[in-house]
Parts: sequence; structure tokens; C-alpha cells
Amino acid sequence: MTDNKQTSEFELIDWIASQQSHSYGDILQNIGDDMAIMQTKDEKLLITTDMLLEGRHFDLSQATLEEVGYKAMAASLSDCAAMASVPLSAVIAVALPKTMELASAKKLHSGIQKASRQFSCPVIGGDTTSWDKPLAINVTMLSIPLGITPILRSGALTDDAIMVTGTLGGSLKGKHLNFTPRIAEARKLAGLYDIHSMMDISDGIAGDLRHICKASNVSALLITDNIPISDSAKTKSDPLTAALSDGEDFELLFTLSARDAEELIIRWDHEKLQITQVGTIIETIDDKATIYTKEPDGTSKELNLTGWQH
Amino acid sequence: MTDNKQTSEFELIDWIASQQSHSYGDILQNIGDDMAIMQTKDEKLLITTDMLLEGRHFDLSQATLEEVGYKAMAASLSDCAAMASVPLSAVIAVALPKTMELASAKKLHSGIQKASRQFSCPVIGGDTTSWDKPLAINVTMLSIPLGITPILRSGALTDDAIMVTGTLGGSLKGKHLNFTPRIAEARKLAGLYDIHSMMDISDGIAGDLRHICKASNVSALLITDNIPISDSAKTKSDPLTAALSDGEDFELLFTLSARDAEELIIRWDHEKLQITQVGTIIETIDDKATIYTKEPDGTSKELNLTGWQH
Repeated sequence: MTDNKQTSEFELIDWIASQQSHSYGDILQNIGDDMAIMQTKDEKLLITTDMLLEGRHFDLSQATLEEVGYKAMAASLSDCAAMASVPLSAVIAVALPKTMELASAKKLHSGIQKASRQFSCPVIGGDTTSWDKPLAINVTMLSIPLGITPILRSGALTDDAIMVTGTLGGSLKGKHLNFTPRIAEARKLAGLYDIHSMMDISDGIAGDLRHICKASNVSALLITDNIPISDSAKTKSDPLTAALSDGEDFELLFTLSARDAEELIIRWDHEKLQITQVGTIIETIDDKATIYTKEPDGTSKELNLTGWQH
Repeated sequence: MTDNKQTSEFELIDWIASQQSHSYGDILQNIGDDMAIMQTKDEKLLITTDMLLEGRHFDLSQATLEEVGYKAMAASLSDCAAMASVPLSAVIAVALPKTMELASAKKLHSGIQKASRQFSCPVIGGDTTSWDKPLAINVTMLSIPLGITPILRSGALTDDAIMVTGTLGGSLKGKHLNFTPRIAEARKLAGLYDIHSMMDISDGIAGDLRHICKASNVSALLITDNIPISDSAKTKSDPLTAALSDGEDFELLFTLSARDAEELIIRWDHEKLQITQVGTIIETIDDKATIYTKEPDGTSKELNLTGWQH
């Protein structure tokens, strides 16, 4: 980690180090040396890294710094959920605009710490620099399987039911800043059933289901009438398209056998978080992963929508 | 990890995934899912994250993209050396300027892969986005102790000899782009002797020795005549000040008992890489970590130089 000698950055780093949350691994060396050290309780280790850029992934005229900090962590926590893994720790690098004051940087980290505490994922290392350009935040997160085999995108099988948690679309009206990563739900689902494939919906189901299909070499049939459209998307001119292609729902998209899906729908407590079957995995034609929609009038057509362009 | 749908970025990601190097852990899931998965061979895990920013940490009119990519990895590899740990894997996020072409992005990654292969540290995950701002590269690196207890900054003891590898100063004339992270030397040193404290010199010994002193609650006496001044620093108007405070030497700064230091100096093969005793750890007065210099005329004074400001 790089050391910055400006007093305010040191103060910030000390302050960050004092804000720790509980972890599933033991922190042997926290912020303040060349590397942080953890003792893990699992042989397998998962890792993800994501850079959030001002003007591209967030807009400070539309979001507070706390919200941006929370979102930066929550997006990576959602990746942990997508693998049905348990967050272990995170390291965060930020490039602060030179004009940003210490109080503002603390607001950003307050949002980070809010997510950190809520999901027991301590921030154990970091790098703070400043430049005369917009804010950039990089979150790298570690997670562990803790008894559940990580669920990949590549395991979808023909005849699998395609399921989603929650409702979709219109996230930009607010949910994209304060969503709840579906870690608890992913762990519960993977504990109860043999989930064949899973990912989180960050680019809209039209785009993300394509990733599962491509990785699994299958196609999909979406029943448009079944898509759970969010209240926010319902106010838009084309609610279905919004639900299919708006980004940043951060809900779970997964597949499992039709029999398990039937049981899941009956047993699941939909009051807390609804789960809906939105389609079925089908065979590919000529090895080309394709998404088809089944319209209310019974006709079928190829879905040409792609996901949201960040 | 975020998916970007522009063809060139996908192509880039595929290309990166094809460039793998050997690793000390097994890669169970590479680039292409929500998280990468590794099987580690050690219970302890070290992690560091660093963001390199164009115009602040590098200047594309002075360095090629290959050099920048190499440097981004090598700086983190130097952190692994500072802990005497073995690199395991890295994840890299880059924010590319919109004007940058695929060929240029590949050059950047060629430099990354050069360091990756040279030090058996595969890049197992990443995030590529573009924006209309300068290049930003974030490297997060994992390492493992593999039989050697990680060496912290906080272990320096009174009467320890203060040692450095190589020569210091003038790195900006070239070395800062093509330095060799001292992983092999750190492992050898820690295997042979009880190294009490260690770090890599990224901000100049004047600044970095302060970190060791502060973390260990000790002071230090530097013998200015003993500082190994690089040929590059010798051409500067004040070579000693350059050697003390120029940044990015990426040499090792460490302390061990005077007796061990004496033996080390005799046994070490200085032809390959010289090791020099540059001073001694002394007690603090009033708990204030201070660096004093002993001048050739025998006088002593407090060193007020700080390290290099990135």
C-alpha cells in the first residue's frame, strides 16, 4: 500500500482503521503495513475487483457521498451473493479529487463502513491518493465458500427453471444506491436446493441471462408476462423493457431443476422477498446462446434487447 | 466484476484470460464469472491494493504503456517482498481513457503480464471500463507466507542494524519503471536470519525509515557516509539528499540484530545485489520517533527531510 504524507490523508487512514466490523476470518495485521494479513477458515478463496468512476457509475449531483460509498461496497457484496459465498474482507483504493475536503472523504467512508458493518466485511487495507480529476473508488473483496460450493454461471441445464428474486427495473430512481445485497437469500437457496447457475443482475436480465446462457451453452425462453416489474419501472413508458434492460437491480438470477423450482415457490417466504419463475432454459440451436420471449398472445420471438450500458 | 459489453473490451478480457502464468495456488475459476476462485496452500493470506493514476504516478510522455503495466504490478510485488511473502495472484481494474485503442490497452496488459509471468503471479480477475478521463490502474495482490512469518514494520529493536539492498536515489531517471521487486532476496534474508522489521523503499529512506521507527516506537541514527548512492543520484546536484529522499527505489529496508548483520555482510553475495548497513536503531526520547544523521565530521543532527511526495 502506498503511504501518503499529507496529514489529512493519514488522519483519514487512522479513522478508517478505527471503524472495523466483525469478520469471518481473523485479521492478523490491519491497515498500516505493506500488506494486511488474514487467517482464513477456508481453503478456497473468492475475489472480485470493481472500479466505480464519477460521471460513469455515479453522479454526485444525484447521490450523496455516503450513498456512493455504500454502493461501492454493496456492488461487490452482491458479487459474493452471486457465488453464494460469505464476505471475508475488503481493500479499498480511492482517488480523491484535490478539491475534496476531509469531511467529504469521511462521508464516503461512512457509507463504506455502513455496508462493511451490515455484512460483516471489514475493510482491512487501502490506498488513498488525490488528483485533479473526478472521484474513483476501487473495491476488491474476498469471500469464502464456508460449506457451500460456489455457484457459477456455467452450470445451467436444459429444462432448468429460470428464477429471479425481487422485482426488476427502474433502479436508477433510487434502488441502485441503497439496494440490499442478497447474500442471506443466496446462502439459503444454495443450502436448500441444488442451484445450477447463478449471478446477480447488474446490467438487466436481458443482458445478464445472456451471460449464463453463453457460459452454460444453452438458450432461454423468457415468459414476459411473468417478469416481476418493480413499482418504479411501472411508472415508465415501457415498464417491461425497463424491467428487462434497466441496470443495477442487484437481484439474484438463478436456475435449478423444474421440480426444485416448484417446491421452492411453495416453501419460500415471499413476504420477505419474492421469488418468481421467469422462464425456462432450452437447448441451443447451432451452439448459439439465444434468448427468446414468449408473449402473452402465445407467440415467440428472439429478444434483441441487450443489457444496460454503464 | 462488472461486465462491459463493448466488443473491444470483451476481446481484451478474453485476451487477458489467455495470458496466464504459473501460480502457487490452484485457480479454480478464472476471469469470467462474478468472482475468481483460488485454492490456497496456506491458512494465512496477505493482501495489498494500490491505485496508479496518470499524471500523478506516471506520465505517458515519459513512459510506455508496457512500462506502466509492468510498474503497476511490480509495485505490488515489492509489497509482497516487503513482507517476505510469496505472490499468489492479482486482480486488476483499469479505467481506460475513451480515446485509447485496443492495441494500446493490450500494450498495458503486456507489461502487466510480463511482471505476472516473471514472478508467478497470475492475474485471475479484473474490471475494464472506459471514461473520458486519464488512465487509472488498480492492482490488488494476494500473497502467502509459505513457511516464513510475514515481517512487519513494527518489530525494530534498539541496537538493531539498519540495512538496505541495492543503491538509492535518482530512480525517476528510469529505475522506477523497470525495477526488480526484491522477493527472492527478502525470502532468502528471512530464511537465513531473524529479520526484525522490513519494508520496501517507495518514498525514499528518509520517509520510509520514519514508518518503521513510528511503528516500532524507536528512533534511528543514519550514518550518511554509508548511504549507498546510485550512479543516477551521483549525477544530481545533491546526491546524498537524492539518495535519502528520492522516491521509488523499491529496495528493501530492514533491521536485524547487530551480530546477525555482521554475519550477513560477510556471507551475502554482494556481486548480485549489495546490502549495506546504513545506521542503527536507538531508543526514542519522550516516545518521539526521530531520525538523526551522523555526519562524516562526527557531529549528529536531526534529519528533517521527509520522503518523496508522489
